[in-house]
Amino acid sequence: MKRIGVLTSGGDAPGMNAAIRAVVRKGNYHGVEVYGIYHGYEGFIQGKMKLLDLGSVGGIIQRGGTKLFSSRCPQFMEEAYRLQGIQKMREAGIEGLIVIGGDGSYRGAIELTKLGFHCIGVPATIDNDVPGTDFTIGFDTAINTVVNAIDNIRDTATSHENTFIIEVMGRNAGDIALWSGLAAGAETVIIPEEPYDLDEIVERLKRGESRKKKYSIIIVAEGAMPASKLAEMLKEKAGIETRITVLGHIQRGGSPTAFDRVLASRLGARAVELLLEGKTRRAVGIKNYQVYDYDLMDIMTTKHKADISLYTLSKELSI
Amino acid sequence: MKRIGVLTSGGDAPGMNAAIRAVVRKGNYHGVEVYGIYHGYEGFIQGKMKLLDLGSVGGIIQRGGTKLFSSRCPQFMEEAYRLQGIQKMREAGIEGLIVIGGDGSYRGAIELTKLGFHCIGVPATIDNDVPGTDFTIGFDTAINTVVNAIDNIRDTATSHENTFIIEVMGRNAGDIALWSGLAAGAETVIIPEEPYDLDEIVERLKRGESRKKKYSIIIVAEGAMPASKLAEMLKEKAGIETRITVLGHIQRGGSPTAFDRVLASRLGARAVELLLEGKTRRAVGIKNYQVYDYDLMDIMTTKHKADISLYTLSKELSI
Amino acid sequence: MKRIGVLTSGGDAPGMNAAIRAVVRKGNYHGVEVYGIYHGYEGFIQGKMKLLDLGSVGGIIQRGGTKLFSSRCPQFMEEAYRLQGIQKMREAGIEGLIVIGGDGSYRGAIELTKLGFHCIGVPATIDNDVPGTDFTIGFDTAINTVVNAIDNIRDTATSHENTFIIEVMGRNAGDIALWSGLAAGAETVIIPEEPYDLDEIVERLKRGESRKKKYSIIIVAEGAMPASKLAEMLKEKAGIETRITVLGHIQRGGSPTAFDRVLASRLGARAVELLLEGKTRRAVGIKNYQVYDYDLMDIMTTKHKADISLYTLSKELSI
Amino acid sequence: MKRIGVLTSGGDAPGMNAAIRAVVRKGNYHGVEVYGIYHGYEGFIQGKMKLLDLGSVGGIIQRGGTKLFSSRCPQFMEEAYRLQGIQKMREAGIEGLIVIGGDGSYRGAIELTKLGFHCIGVPATIDNDVPGTDFTIGFDTAINTVVNAIDNIRDTATSHENTFIIEVMGRNAGDIALWSGLAAGAETVIIPEEPYDLDEIVERLKRGESRKKKYSIIIVAEGAMPASKLAEMLKEKAGIETRITVLGHIQRGGSPTAFDRVLASRLGARAVELLLEGKTRRAVGIKNYQVYDYDLMDIMTTKHKADISLYTLSKELSI
Repeated sequence: MKRIGVLTSGGDAPGMNAAIRAVVRKGNYHGVEVYGIYHGYEGFIQGKMKLLDLGSVGGIIQRGGTKLFSSRCPQFMEEAYRLQGIQKMREAGIEGLIVIGGDGSYRGAIELTKLGFHCIGVPATIDNDVPGTDFTIGFDTAINTVVNAIDNIRDTATSHENTFIIEVMGRNAGDIALWSGLAAGAETVIIPEEPYDLDEIVERLKRGESRKKKYSIIIVAEGAMPASKLAEMLKEKAGIETRITVLGHIQRGGSPTAFDRVLASRLGARAVELLLEGKTRRAVGIKNYQVYDYDLMDIMTTKHKADISLYTLSKELSI
Repeated sequence: MKRIGVLTSGGDAPGMNAAIRAVVRKGNYHGVEVYGIYHGYEGFIQGKMKLLDLGSVGGIIQRGGTKLFSSRCPQFMEEAYRLQGIQKMREAGIEGLIVIGGDGSYRGAIELTKLGFHCIGVPATIDNDVPGTDFTIGFDTAINTVVNAIDNIRDTATSHENTFIIEVMGRNAGDIALWSGLAAGAETVIIPEEPYDLDEIVERLKRGESRKKKYSIIIVAEGAMPASKLAEMLKEKAGIETRITVLGHIQRGGSPTAFDRVLASRLGARAVELLLEGKTRRAVGIKNYQVYDYDLMDIMTTKHKADISLYTLSKELSI
Repeated sequence: MKRIGVLTSGGDAPGMNAAIRAVVRKGNYHGVEVYGIYHGYEGFIQGKMKLLDLGSVGGIIQRGGTKLFSSRCPQFMEEAYRLQGIQKMREAGIEGLIVIGGDGSYRGAIELTKLGFHCIGVPATIDNDVPGTDFTIGFDTAINTVVNAIDNIRDTATSHENTFIIEVMGRNAGDIALWSGLAAGAETVIIPEEPYDLDEIVERLKRGESRKKKYSIIIVAEGAMPASKLAEMLKEKAGIETRITVLGHIQRGGSPTAFDRVLASRLGARAVELLLEGKTRRAVGIKNYQVYDYDLMDIMTTKHKADISLYTLSKELSI
Repeated sequence: MKRIGVLTSGGDAPGMNAAIRAVVRKGNYHGVEVYGIYHGYEGFIQGKMKLLDLGSVGGIIQRGGTKLFSSRCPQFMEEAYRLQGIQKMREAGIEGLIVIGGDGSYRGAIELTKLGFHCIGVPATIDNDVPGTDFTIGFDTAINTVVNAIDNIRDTATSHENTFIIEVMGRNAGDIALWSGLAAGAETVIIPEEPYDLDEIVERLKRGESRKKKYSIIIVAEGAMPASKLAEMLKEKAGIETRITVLGHIQRGGSPTAFDRVLASRLGARAVELLLEGKTRRAVGIKNYQVYDYDLMDIMTTKHKADISLYTLSKELSI
């Protein structure tokens, strides 16, 4: 292979730029030209791309977001458009593609490989919900952003002796809630994977109160329930007043942490190697702190599982 | 005076601890004992206090929130309770009080001075809405927190080419919106002090789009209108889709900036001097970068005004 | 004027990019084209420049350093080269220049005005040592960087009960040392403007020790003496062991604070207005929180003075 | 066991407080009293300790340094003093000890176990050089501090087009240099574990220059050589001017990252379980993201190894 493409797709995540940089530099190291494809699969279909040289990825390792932009592309569901995209790539001499994104983006890549176009997936999403990898690019940055926000809110909670409910991202996966809850010393963490017990939450709040702890922080993953609903229930059930913060979009941005930059560099570089080894329909991931790769099809049958031991630990420590 | 008290009241603000520290150390410098009164005016009424020595304010200059706690105190509206508090203070030998808080807290202090108890006000609130001072303690930290949050959101806005509406604090004062909007390069800023023009906002968004700027950031102060309402109007009026973030309580917390710590140190120290000079019913403030003091009663007749030149500048720069 | 130039010169400072952005956008607002001149006066002499449109200053308000680069230019000392530069500018239709930098850069601007070329100065340097303005662009960011570093070091100082000497920038001006020392609660601050008294420093350290404060932080401006020299003196004189950190170049970088971005926006915009009003040999500055302008020649006769009241306050609070 | 002790020893590391908190809360969860022993082994010998209840570890999870202080203790080398300490512990009913620190601290713990006192080690040091664990508590925070500092310096390096040499901690272990170098996109990384080749470094710098990259960042671990020495060599050998920054003590402090807080919580909690299971002379660690434990004696025979694949990758990406 003498020329490959790289695109970012789905929700943006901090470290995507570090991954793009690694792909370009590792490609150049092996004498391969790397084209940046803009706006995800939309750019793939339309052939919107540009050669990325070493200079063009200078000074981006520390930037949040994605230099290549991202977008949803409903057209990509239709084979005709996918074929058109492959045609565009082939005309430009591009023989393989690295897709940086979450499992939605991986499905697109699988479709391309079915049409004979070589693809490698690199997991990047703040939700940490891509099966087959212990961590996705962006997750570590997101939990640090959340923890910093909670540290801020705790200043206020402590000063006014209030109970705060903080809603964090995570539609199906409770990873952000779990890690940031444990790291921030939250009294209660509610995740989609585990049933919650309102009585227990109330009892925990009252126990804290009885030993003169007059503030509490509850983290709830958006996929478990909206913060506003929990606030209502606590009020109705136990007369407990709470304050709500929905962290929202600040969780997606920010300069990536050291961990995310290193992860992005390792995974991006390995993806290039796989393409050069003639591999296709593979995803890279990190398992037991080793970079490895697996069949992209695995994501159809495997599901990401949050580390529930953190949930148990969180409960024990918020005695 | 040989013994004075200090309390924090109203919404907490970063730098309150730095002000407490300055009061204690400056008091000690002059051989005066300083008592910390806990939970604002509630503690005043109940005589909940503790001697603060040099060690007790070690390592707090960098902490958000307030070590002395804060709370609302409806009882304080009644003279009987205020008299009870003054009695408690006198029994403990406390001859004067420094009140760190916003203009609501100043009203309480005025009532105490009417009963002959010496009080000095120190302005601390993130809203910057205390008349008589260019800046309140906590404002600089709050706008930096907001600006960092917007920088994060911009990463995402840029990557996905969306328009974001960000709601910031400020019920009557647009200062947080104005300063953070200018500092973050927001395309539009909406504040309570100025009428907004929906047509102009739409036109600005479209103008940006026409020169290929595909994302925009709109800052709206909570006192002007909820972000959700603006989102609805933009959708109905012009079919523009937006995403909303309500920054909420993260704006109150965080380690104070250098500016806020210096301001708190200067104002806290000056308040002690005023008490020692036998002054009462005064507030300290900063005007033209000089520390000065003025009659607390001024807050009844004067209103804080946001610097509207920043609003004009913001518009010119977001051409 | 239909076309103006802007350059950055001298040591870089956070907020220079925000100032460039303001110049470009304010220029565009008035229908004026703005050219970026690269590498300071070197680019002026060689005519290295590029038209800056609105898009080219997108996403730079939050970046440290300077997009236009900076460099020393010995050639500029010679009139022949200055005349060559003016010739290059005139050929390109550029009728006026905005110089963003410190007082060294201002001297260059003065020379250009002597040759009839219109120049306006915008003060940007972390040292805060430009006469005629209360604050320079970059100073607020620098002191926050220093204060964060000291907060980090304090964690260690507290844990191990050591005395730390921290050397900060400031060859002639003690502003960084003064502000960060006060904001960080340093026990001792040594600046070029005031004589230090070793006996007093030792006594202060011992006094702290006697009341069981077992760690201390001393800030020394590089212009007062090297940290290493102070360490030697404390050891020889009083047998006091200290640890040294020289903060160095981290003080120049970082994303500008809200204050610096607002200041840069205001001053950059005002500089454009001055050029359009036909003014020359003026500098913009902030005085009593108002933007104003003054004769550039003033810097030859006036000297910046640090606010010594902060020095006194710092001593009183570190009782 | 009904009562256990916990101490911190050696250089402080961010996350030590989170580990202390986890020990106390996990202990309380199991109905065990936890005593904090102050100033490391010195406090052990002298019996300086205090019962830590739930409230006493409130609000410390986010603090750098160690609430229990740390210090070197030469006396502890002598068996008589160790026996004295054990005696003090027994008198207080303390039956086991959790030692939070690096491998030096582990040696002390081994000596105690030889005298029949139960000890469990928890690895905490920014250097990541404790054998038997993939990561030590504090390492992730330290590399983020370093990466942020380099991001700052890069602003300046870019603006002035200089080459910077940045010296980071790591006497025997290159982990900090390796990870932060990769994360910051440094051009060259020099570590104690690998020989450096001056010719290659020079060539790399010149290659960058030839493709118009005019600044470079070189990271050197203190254990490989001082930054000043490298600067001299580059000047003598190739006439290359560089600027130096020695990051120093800022690397030890700061609020711990989410990763470090989670790691500290997991390891601290597991250490308590081991004591309660009657185990002794064990260390907890993380291996393949699982908490596990191993014989403390292993540290005498095993050596920590940095992940050299990061070194290779760093070189390939800085082509």
